[in-house]
Amino acid sequence: MSLEIVSSNKSFAGWHKRYRHRSTTLQCEMTFGIYLPPQAEQGAQLPVLYWLSGLTCTDENFMHKAGAQRLAAELGLIIVAPDTSPRGADVPGDPDGAWDFGHGAGFYLNATQAPWAQHYRMHDYVVDELPALIEAHFPASAKRGISGHSMGGHGALVCALRNPGRYQSLSAFAPISNPSQCPWGEKAFSRYLGADRATWQAWDACALLADAPEKLPILVDQGDRDDFLLQQLKPSALQAAAEAAGHPLTLRMQPGYDHSYYFIASFIDDHLRHHAAALCR
Amino acid sequence: MSLEIVSSNKSFAGWHKRYRHRSTTLQCEMTFGIYLPPQAEQGAQLPVLYWLSGLTCTDENFMHKAGAQRLAAELGLIIVAPDTSPRGADVPGDPDGAWDFGHGAGFYLNATQAPWAQHYRMHDYVVDELPALIEAHFPASAKRGISGHSMGGHGALVCALRNPGRYQSLSAFAPISNPSQCPWGEKAFSRYLGADRATWQAWDACALLADAPEKLPILVDQGDRDDFLLQQLKPSALQAAAEAAGHPLTLRMQPGYDHSYYFIASFIDDHLRHHAAALCR
Repeated sequence: MSLEIVSSNKSFAGWHKRYRHRSTTLQCEMTFGIYLPPQAEQGAQLPVLYWLSGLTCTDENFMHKAGAQRLAAELGLIIVAPDTSPRGADVPGDPDGAWDFGHGAGFYLNATQAPWAQHYRMHDYVVDELPALIEAHFPASAKRGISGHSMGGHGALVCALRNPGRYQSLSAFAPISNPSQCPWGEKAFSRYLGADRATWQAWDACALLADAPEKLPILVDQGDRDDFLLQQLKPSALQAAAEAAGHPLTLRMQPGYDHSYYFIASFIDDHLRHHAAALCR
Repeated sequence: MSLEIVSSNKSFAGWHKRYRHRSTTLQCEMTFGIYLPPQAEQGAQLPVLYWLSGLTCTDENFMHKAGAQRLAAELGLIIVAPDTSPRGADVPGDPDGAWDFGHGAGFYLNATQAPWAQHYRMHDYVVDELPALIEAHFPASAKRGISGHSMGGHGALVCALRNPGRYQSLSAFAPISNPSQCPWGEKAFSRYLGADRATWQAWDACALLADAPEKLPILVDQGDRDDFLLQQLKPSALQAAAEAAGHPLTLRMQPGYDHSYYFIASFIDDHLRHHAAALCR
């Protein structure tokens, strides 16, 4: 697997770099961003936080707007931000050109239905191919955390809950908590996975919590002025599922905050410390 | 003068807001961003840091990418980010559609030449109209600092040096230090100010330093891997002018850093503390 460097910017004495590579899982070219803290040049093997962005984003939104590099540099944490879907002219997108399906909206699952199944395998890309690439090419240890926002918060929850032992820390900002029961999720799942709602449960955090063999503690921040709170995000469903399963969940309703990166930036330090407490020891 | 709110996002327990207003100076509608730290809701009169962005930017780039809100919230500092030029269909732009003149490239001066002179009066807007607006509508004291990046670093230096007593603190990131002697400045000044280079000196920080009646200390950060360093920015000219005038300048060459917001974010905290030391007492 070869990596082609796209750009490199010094940031807080470390480096933000972007790489392009051919993904065998997704059968297209993919770009990801990586923040390498200054400790990466000192021969250390560093833990990695995977960040999954939300609908319409690329690898760049988080690196531009979250302000995570300052504390990541202090903690010695690598951050990897993949794109949010397979990309390219060969990859089918939403037939109506909508922004909530297809390009920029891979939902971090493995599609089973034509024409999506060929390329839309973001779960396997995020969980397997990308970490293998990172751990082969960078001073990355096998200590892994995962977090994300909105669709990416859903992705972080599902990737960790489906793969016990693969991640040592987990958090989310304003996740789509119960995608099989909200319009964004119903649109995406009915196309990527088909009409049989029973198959959707394997990609729904609320369903996965019921049987999770590993009780990885979850930190979730959610703004109470988020426009998508009640119809799409449904943190109360996540809370109910966690309580029913006895799964440790810290759900913080943040008064006045919305769905934007201003919200994420305001609390990213708490999430980085949550991950570092599990990863940096 | 009336303000129309465009958007409002809670950020670090304070608020990032955008407002639209009719500018009498620029004879067009203008949008600015303001960060109000949490102390603004507690009845305090707070100092204001004016941030001037670089070529092609709007009021949003700094607020999205610099990561300044965290420490501004701690220090109790308001930050105001105006747009970088007059805007609108009635405002003439670059005849060739270039990005380094006209819209997004007002150079923070008062144009004297047709057709620019009617609208391009960013100096008076930044120095007079905008602070009057801010101090009338927000809990802002008359303690003012000014900073900026690239074209906006030039603007910050010139606004402060031309108006002794108006600002109590001054800094810049990678400023266009000697615009009368570089391609960006020569293009802009020859159009906005005309062919007589003698008139350009009133808008060039290096010339202004020679006669500055007030020795306001200047903090400048400059990346040594900045693609524009030698041809456009010329910090050595600023250093020579400051030394000749006995003007206090701390010029920090930052190894490995480029011209991007990754560079600005890496050192914004130092600049906020530089301003707070003068403004927050």
